[in-house]
Amino acid sequence: MKLEEILKGIKQLDNTWIQKARERTSQLVMPTRALGRLHEVSERLCAIQKTLEPSVKRKAVLVMAGDHGVASEGVSAYPQEVTGAMVQTFLKGGAGINAISRHVGADVWVVDMGIIPQLDPASLDGGDRLFVRKIARGTSSFVQGPAMSRDDAEKSILTGFRLAADLFHKGFEVLGTGDMGIANTTPSAAIGCVVTGIPPEEMVGRGTGVNDEGLRIKQAAVVKGIQVNRPDPDDGLDVLAKVGGFEIGGIAGCILAGAFYGRPVVIDGFISTASALIAHALCPMVIDYIFAGHRSEETGHGVMLKYLGIEPILDLGMRLGEGTGGTLAMSIMEGAVCVFNEVLTFEEAGVSDKS
Amino acid sequence: MKLEEILKGIKQLDNTWIQKARERTSQLVMPTRALGRLHEVSERLCAIQKTLEPSVKRKAVLVMAGDHGVASEGVSAYPQEVTGAMVQTFLKGGAGINAISRHVGADVWVVDMGIIPQLDPASLDGGDRLFVRKIARGTSSFVQGPAMSRDDAEKSILTGFRLAADLFHKGFEVLGTGDMGIANTTPSAAIGCVVTGIPPEEMVGRGTGVNDEGLRIKQAAVVKGIQVNRPDPDDGLDVLAKVGGFEIGGIAGCILAGAFYGRPVVIDGFISTASALIAHALCPMVIDYIFAGHRSEETGHGVMLKYLGIEPILDLGMRLGEGTGGTLAMSIMEGAVCVFNEVLTFEEAGVSDKS
Repeated sequence: MKLEEILKGIKQLDNTWIQKARERTSQLVMPTRALGRLHEVSERLCAIQKTLEPSVKRKAVLVMAGDHGVASEGVSAYPQEVTGAMVQTFLKGGAGINAISRHVGADVWVVDMGIIPQLDPASLDGGDRLFVRKIARGTSSFVQGPAMSRDDAEKSILTGFRLAADLFHKGFEVLGTGDMGIANTTPSAAIGCVVTGIPPEEMVGRGTGVNDEGLRIKQAAVVKGIQVNRPDPDDGLDVLAKVGGFEIGGIAGCILAGAFYGRPVVIDGFISTASALIAHALCPMVIDYIFAGHRSEETGHGVMLKYLGIEPILDLGMRLGEGTGGTLAMSIMEGAVCVFNEVLTFEEAGVSDKS
Repeated sequence: MKLEEILKGIKQLDNTWIQKARERTSQLVMPTRALGRLHEVSERLCAIQKTLEPSVKRKAVLVMAGDHGVASEGVSAYPQEVTGAMVQTFLKGGAGINAISRHVGADVWVVDMGIIPQLDPASLDGGDRLFVRKIARGTSSFVQGPAMSRDDAEKSILTGFRLAADLFHKGFEVLGTGDMGIANTTPSAAIGCVVTGIPPEEMVGRGTGVNDEGLRIKQAAVVKGIQVNRPDPDDGLDVLAKVGGFEIGGIAGCILAGAFYGRPVVIDGFISTASALIAHALCPMVIDYIFAGHRSEETGHGVMLKYLGIEPILDLGMRLGEGTGGTLAMSIMEGAVCVFNEVLTFEEAGVSDKS
């Protein structure tokens, strides 16, 4: 499918389902909407899934990995080899996202969207969980020119779209997005600045933990990247190509797939939300299909969420990425669904409503 | 055991376990403390359980029910019969707490701490989950005098303590506290005002949903109850007796049991936190063993949490009670434990630490 067809195929959420779901909520044996945001979550899931029996039992997480040319500027506290090493840790099941996914009952897949090392799934422990969809061996540094070509930007989105579509076709009911890529808070901050118009001082944070000097370098890189490339905030593909990354494009594709196929997508923190900014620039209606898993500790994440008008489910000072916040939030979403599906009505329980 | 012995037996948390746990966290293959509050949760569990392999797999919830004389003042949007009717709904497994407990894998028990109806466990659907520990058939209205005698206040605490102790002896690793009692946000607000010194306008909220007139009546009842009874803020038993409730005392007993036996207790919202204020007044060290499940939408809950110096895990606009917020938070706590126990170290994963 072409990007244009995808964007044309995304439909606004059918609000009559929200109404029907709210009606059911109002009958549950509890004071009016006493479970607050849980009701909003379950009702939106009803509308997305077009049902009054929503389900998020079958959960998947796609962790998209990519390397970044801008890492050479010294914007990260970690060496670039860590991207590939962490991909292998995900496959072994030993990272944060694996522990949290086992806890909530989510299946994890990892995608090489464009990391530097050439990993061979056949020779790796857990390699059957790796999709190699390399666009290139890392992006170019955006302080000197575009991170990637417009064609590669589109290709990264379509790659993410297809992988997510396959999972939906296999029956997964909810998809979490994760990221891995040393230096990727830098392109994410650049996207945040371009799309929201917020200056770098408020958008660029410490990522994995750079010191004050690293933070200064990072801010300068974002400023320069925007000056050199002049991305068009109204053209999501242009922003992604000029200051983005391959995994950021891949996640944007996952979000478009959720909206296109009518499935909920739970985004994670700063990087996934930068992807959401790209997807939203391409098609604002995607918002209805997105759940924001958590508010990251990373500077600027709150601003991005505010721009998109979405409230995060969790707020626990997390800033790991990998999809950890979104995946942990799935357990809250599933709790909301259990309440919606299982709680008796006042009538069924034989309890009198308000006096 | 006598209350005095219990209070003497509560020990401060052993902080050397926190240090050992932080050391383990620092080795996990992720940037320094990148999972924020999740690390704090798992480390405190290590200290409470005196282990580097914490577990909250075996979860229990005690829903304490009581009726309140002050209901006759018109402080609730619901008729008083709802207390007993909801107790039966809990036993049938049809309420919010049941749905959420099934979701997180927690066992639910219900305690008649002093509801008006005489329920016979043997003749009730799910009656094997009901403990009848009636102190009296509802409290007296505190606008005319003490809600209960000092002896009954102590008895309610000891009852909760023993029930919780039994669950801990059975092997439950974490206990959630829940409440049911029409009008019980009124005594909880009174306790909040007395202990924290915050005036009723900032402490009294709409509970299950009273209108403006109901809110005015409720505030007036709290003001009068405090004027008439003059509870001593430094004497937890006096506060509980004069403006409390039987289920509030029972929950305070659960909290003391957690601290006494070194087990984590997850409190829920406004009522459970009023109980925590009582327990804290009796023995400030209980705080180390308490996890605040969520911030309730009820006015004044945030103030109570601030007074106790504890940060809630969730903040989802919930205000149902029953233990729903605390129990839902157990799933986050278990996620934190999974991360602590299962994530590889940098060394195990073969990933290089900071450059």
